[in-house]
Amino acid sequence: MITFLTDFGPMDDFVGTCHGVIKRIAPEVEIIDITHGISPQAVLEGALMLANAVPYMPDGIHLAVVDPGVGSDRKALALRDVGDRLYVGPDNGLLIPAAERLGGISAARELANPAFWLEPVSATFHGRDVFAPVAAHLAAGAEFEELGRELDPAELVRLEVPEPSIGASSIRARALTVDRFGNVQLNLNREQLERVGILPGVQVELELATEHYYAVAARTFSDVRPGEIVLYEDAYENVSIAITSGNAAETLTAAPGNEVRIRVAR
Amino acid sequence: MITFLTDFGPMDDFVGTCHGVIKRIAPEVEIIDITHGISPQAVLEGALMLANAVPYMPDGIHLAVVDPGVGSDRKALALRDVGDRLYVGPDNGLLIPAAERLGGISAARELANPAFWLEPVSATFHGRDVFAPVAAHLAAGAEFEELGRELDPAELVRLEVPEPSIGASSIRARALTVDRFGNVQLNLNREQLERVGILPGVQVELELATEHYYAVAARTFSDVRPGEIVLYEDAYENVSIAITSGNAAETLTAAPGNEVRIRVAR
Amino acid sequence: MITFLTDFGPMDDFVGTCHGVIKRIAPEVEIIDITHGISPQAVLEGALMLANAVPYMPDGIHLAVVDPGVGSDRKALALRDVGDRLYVGPDNGLLIPAAERLGGISAARELANPAFWLEPVSATFHGRDVFAPVAAHLAAGAEFEELGRELDPAELVRLEVPEPSIGASSIRARALTVDRFGNVQLNLNREQLERVGILPGVQVELELATEHYYAVAARTFSDVRPGEIVLYEDAYENVSIAITSGNAAETLTAAPGNEVRIRVAR
Repeated sequence: MITFLTDFGPMDDFVGTCHGVIKRIAPEVEIIDITHGISPQAVLEGALMLANAVPYMPDGIHLAVVDPGVGSDRKALALRDVGDRLYVGPDNGLLIPAAERLGGISAARELANPAFWLEPVSATFHGRDVFAPVAAHLAAGAEFEELGRELDPAELVRLEVPEPSIGASSIRARALTVDRFGNVQLNLNREQLERVGILPGVQVELELATEHYYAVAARTFSDVRPGEIVLYEDAYENVSIAITSGNAAETLTAAPGNEVRIRVAR
Repeated sequence: MITFLTDFGPMDDFVGTCHGVIKRIAPEVEIIDITHGISPQAVLEGALMLANAVPYMPDGIHLAVVDPGVGSDRKALALRDVGDRLYVGPDNGLLIPAAERLGGISAARELANPAFWLEPVSATFHGRDVFAPVAAHLAAGAEFEELGRELDPAELVRLEVPEPSIGASSIRARALTVDRFGNVQLNLNREQLERVGILPGVQVELELATEHYYAVAARTFSDVRPGEIVLYEDAYENVSIAITSGNAAETLTAAPGNEVRIRVAR
Repeated sequence: MITFLTDFGPMDDFVGTCHGVIKRIAPEVEIIDITHGISPQAVLEGALMLANAVPYMPDGIHLAVVDPGVGSDRKALALRDVGDRLYVGPDNGLLIPAAERLGGISAARELANPAFWLEPVSATFHGRDVFAPVAAHLAAGAEFEELGRELDPAELVRLEVPEPSIGASSIRARALTVDRFGNVQLNLNREQLERVGILPGVQVELELATEHYYAVAARTFSDVRPGEIVLYEDAYENVSIAITSGNAAETLTAAPGNEVRIRVAR
């Protein structure tokens, strides 16, 4: 089983071409497309979404490609986690939060053995020419140790995941993602929210880009009235902002990366 | 075989996560994605598209999630139709037109047995935590009767499907959906159109939002000249509006829910 | 194995319905979706993308539907190439560049045997009613010769693929496609570019719609500075225009079909 996450989008042939490459090498393998809707070259967004998704995936090989450094000297990687799942992708931090979510990295290899690549390798599409074929060969029985030289996990490129700043009575958080329904996921969990006294039912003041909004903390958005802004723990155990029967990202003009200040309303 | 229809869109990881959940429970099952492009929380649109699609699907389990009431006290359902196909989704009317298209409901159960759910069940993503796992367990051999208490089909929430109003010489219809090509599907069939004298070749007047357009009734859009507005029976046996080599929805600024008046042109 | 390419888009149920039709006829077959993001009715774009993708696909049946002439008297086709792969789609040129990329057409048949179609055949959705079922029957063992009368490959409708005009010191090319990252693919290869003296490292002047831009030829976009316009050989061996860490199509307001003039910068 190979799972597949990229920023290739739903419109081009990049995803389909990688599926073809995998099936030529490993006809028996099944592919689960986690998503290909990561914003173009948004490595952090891809890393967080992959980490959120892998606990729901069957054991197997997690192939992920969000690769702004393709063609440069960034390394290509395979990781193994403590539960023996494998990860294949670029050495830009994309794979690490997922492997850590499932217990941590037990081994890392640089992809350096061209026996597992397509020939010739293009300068701009390593998804097709390196990562997908390596994942397929692993699925077909190739040994992790054959892929290339061992890397010290401490050498790997890591992302800086932005941390919220939790004050005595207010929080400075950051929008991580916006989903199809306009729900805005923050880099914040329920425990952090409760630390400043924001429990379900509490009225809250949000500040985004100098605009102020009233919201209410709730268990879920169906606990509040249509049109009301709600702060709730989402299905990935992050705090999100939603509007019942509405679109919070549009109403608040919120986008990934935006700062959000949160305090109990006076 | 599980078919899968939602309003999750092509960009987020919601669809892929549900695929992972299904495959962990029922590794042998195959999933056909009917569509995930239903407009957000548009239960009627989802119900009509599911009903249009199921006759073309293999026997199996039809999983559908368009669920604005998630987290509220709306029930979760499984239905069986007279031909023994199963349907899994929320009790908001989404599943019923499909089951009726295939002969009618023979039994209904409330999803009330947490043995078939993921633990913990989130407040906002029952697609992942309740509906997908129940469909997977059914595919893997669980009995319909184990899911929860029997429901009387007469108790189920039903949608009001808007009916056209057919006058002596004119019709008041409603746009149901707009497809990628800009074709506007109406809540109208050919027999209703013919009742006011509109047969292939007849010139027609359309009124949308106080604007008037000339159109022609035809067997298909390739029977008329490029740029001409055409009224035809579409592949789902509804009447649709199209423009040959053009985009009718853009030209007429038509959207789902809009009223359309139709009469023979004078 | 069936591969599937269309202009149906990711939002409607057209793709999913065809998957259902195929699986009812040939439950064992696997489907690889190459892409469904071809611009609506853009036959040339579909033909070029199919030709680019087929070398990466497993042997099997290549089903493709971009069909502005559906319902007219355009023929429906199956082709066989010299390597025994099969192609199914409309007779509008869509299939031919792919078959020629893999060695050329060895036989052609008109789809004329309704035993392999759904009944009734709609006037507007031959993807569902003719092409998908024919591909499925071929996958399930039907003979190519049973599909309908033999056609002379010389009779088939062919597309005019626009050729660049290569002068002594300048090139007049055309934009073929724009991908998700804003990379603009031209109808030009590296050998043609080098014929006017444009090798990696050379400064280049681009002209689009009376606007002039400086660019640099490079092996790949990671060889130049962020924000710089780069001309490089893409992963399909066409010349493309990109902007490192940017979106070339937006910056240059380039779209498929646009003319691009290229010369060495003075």
